[in-house]
Amino acid sequence: MNKIYLDHIAGTPVDSDVVETMLPYLKEIFGNPQSLHDFGDEAKSAIDEARQKVAGLINSKPEEIYFTSSGTESNNFAIKGLALANQKKGDHIIISAIEHQSVMYSAKSLEKSGFKITYVPVDKFGLVNPDDVSKNITKETILVSVIYASSEVGTIQPVKDISKIVREKGIVFHTDAVAAAGNMPVDVIDSGIDSLSLAANQFYGPKGVAALFIRKGVRIIPFMDGGIQEEGRRAGTENVPGIVGMGKAAEISKQEMSKRNECLSKLRDKLIKELPQKIENAYLTGHPDKRLPHHASFCIEFIEGESMLLNLSMEGIAVSSGSACTSKALKSSHVLAAMNIPAALAQGSIVFSFGMSNKTEDIDFVLKVFPPIVEKLRKMSPLYKKHLDSKL
Amino acid sequence: MNKIYLDHIAGTPVDSDVVETMLPYLKEIFGNPQSLHDFGDEAKSAIDEARQKVAGLINSKPEEIYFTSSGTESNNFAIKGLALANQKKGDHIIISAIEHQSVMYSAKSLEKSGFKITYVPVDKFGLVNPDDVSKNITKETILVSVIYASSEVGTIQPVKDISKIVREKGIVFHTDAVAAAGNMPVDVIDSGIDSLSLAANQFYGPKGVAALFIRKGVRIIPFMDGGIQEEGRRAGTENVPGIVGMGKAAEISKQEMSKRNECLSKLRDKLIKELPQKIENAYLTGHPDKRLPHHASFCIEFIEGESMLLNLSMEGIAVSSGSACTSKALKSSHVLAAMNIPAALAQGSIVFSFGMSNKTEDIDFVLKVFPPIVEKLRKMSPLYKKHLDSKL
Repeated sequence: MNKIYLDHIAGTPVDSDVVETMLPYLKEIFGNPQSLHDFGDEAKSAIDEARQKVAGLINSKPEEIYFTSSGTESNNFAIKGLALANQKKGDHIIISAIEHQSVMYSAKSLEKSGFKITYVPVDKFGLVNPDDVSKNITKETILVSVIYASSEVGTIQPVKDISKIVREKGIVFHTDAVAAAGNMPVDVIDSGIDSLSLAANQFYGPKGVAALFIRKGVRIIPFMDGGIQEEGRRAGTENVPGIVGMGKAAEISKQEMSKRNECLSKLRDKLIKELPQKIENAYLTGHPDKRLPHHASFCIEFIEGESMLLNLSMEGIAVSSGSACTSKALKSSHVLAAMNIPAALAQGSIVFSFGMSNKTEDIDFVLKVFPPIVEKLRKMSPLYKKHLDSKL
Repeated sequence: MNKIYLDHIAGTPVDSDVVETMLPYLKEIFGNPQSLHDFGDEAKSAIDEARQKVAGLINSKPEEIYFTSSGTESNNFAIKGLALANQKKGDHIIISAIEHQSVMYSAKSLEKSGFKITYVPVDKFGLVNPDDVSKNITKETILVSVIYASSEVGTIQPVKDISKIVREKGIVFHTDAVAAAGNMPVDVIDSGIDSLSLAANQFYGPKGVAALFIRKGVRIIPFMDGGIQEEGRRAGTENVPGIVGMGKAAEISKQEMSKRNECLSKLRDKLIKELPQKIENAYLTGHPDKRLPHHASFCIEFIEGESMLLNLSMEGIAVSSGSACTSKALKSSHVLAAMNIPAALAQGSIVFSFGMSNKTEDIDFVLKVFPPIVEKLRKMSPLYKKHLDSKL
């Protein structure tokens, strides 16, 4: 069976050039970058070079990039570290209502030690209104975190407008750009960002490596205590092959971005246009235009997300129902709830995310096999029966 | 120039079989283990299998193994997570005076939030006396952490005796076995361990992946907040290739351990015997017998560690002066200080750590080139001049 991977938001394949670049660091170049000998020096040079490339992707300085093990770690490091570094100034943190679990639960863990959290609402498209951030700022506010773009609904936030409001008041602004960085232009200077998370496996780099950008001069308490790696801000032996891979992936992504996105947004737009034509009661989630170039998400009414996924998987099509980080928890999405999507409709959430291996024919195949699956599943749905009855 | 790597304690090369096992997970098998489709299932199966192999290495159950990104993360997770999970019972933590930085600084960070830390002393061999642990236990003690074996001086602690005392009082016992696991038999059941850190890059696995064993029933607060990975105890997309590599490395290490250690301990014993014969005022650090099979450490009097390292590196020999995690900090070692080694002597610390690529000839080469280096450096040492003058 031909397999079609449409779940790039859960992790991309690794670019073959990236794998090739990593291989020497899994084989002959195995030194510890902290060691004071040639083996160490080679590894150290490699991570310095990777740091430059990652910096280049988001227009930061290399010394503002700290390598971590995942987007989740970057967000934990940022939320906890920035809050703790500023706790003498205040105890209030603002986050959006549609943050990734790693931001949300990091904030909740701070709540247990006395911090206060305000959740800024979003509109039906998943957009934060910068005025809502402004309204919620108090004298105690020390940190604002708004996700750059949502992996669940694809919506891109007005980050620049939000950061302007936040930073004018001397408050630190963090953004979780894990779904965005590498997939769309992200510029920390132009957008006025203090702290930003990005992860290699979102842009054809390997799993197990990510980074946190922290603007020079912004104070943060280390999350990982121990040795002096990463300028003393993130202890632990560096994942040299992973970091080298992330560097290469960042370099390629920067070069290829506009070309990639031209292709990917065509696939996205085709599905967004044609899927609702083929399936009734299928609604786009997230913003129609302000969305990730490789992301199309829907709610299919009278149906349950997991059964769609499993049926599509049987046809060789891999998609997700929302965040991979909680997919197996089978809990309803706090993101869709925040967008005021009714729980019954939110159950039918499905996310298609595209990558460089996808072709127009893949979308055609989805448009061919998905409608009959929906029809089949709806026949088994009591809600759908009720809906049909009501129409009689 | 022929290069001789004698710094395995800073990180081993990756076994070629381990690299081969990882490659498919860097290439075709790229799914997110949390995804509900075939791509995800393949990745999930791979980490399940790796978990079994890592468990096999330390005689735990697979479900007691939590994958992390480094030994440092495992120690942060353990010390902070176990302390926080038990803070209603008490606020007192006991650690040895020769813990790795990641344990020591995790404990120090807890001190800032009100926990009290007692440092148990060691003798001149770096050994903890179990009675000293016993004496320091109070009603408030909730956690004891003693390193399994020191990466700086090689000494293996009487972990079983210590854990018995600790656990009889209902106190949680953690051990940092990063330098030990994979290099010597470690059995969490026989030694009565509640929590144990191990890292792949200490036993021919890749950098960027490690694990924490937590005995079933032992409570711990997650360190990394976010998704439901690792049974909700360690959020973040799994480093699938790294985890697969760690599994394979654990499997091979278990199979090969006795054979490996027969070779390695011969190299160790040869150097321990012959180096002090060739260099006067060269003293073994750590215990003469109770030491890691691949570890020989010395203090060379009237000399400074870094200059030895650089001179040996020029001869193609890679060694370390202590912990790679702080080598570039050029601070004196808290481990040697705890062993009552005078600061001046501790400056001449040098650690040779052996691996499967090393041969007897490598030791012969060290014994040939190292004494003239020492002689040369001592000629430049005011301390040595003073010593010679005093002998006149």
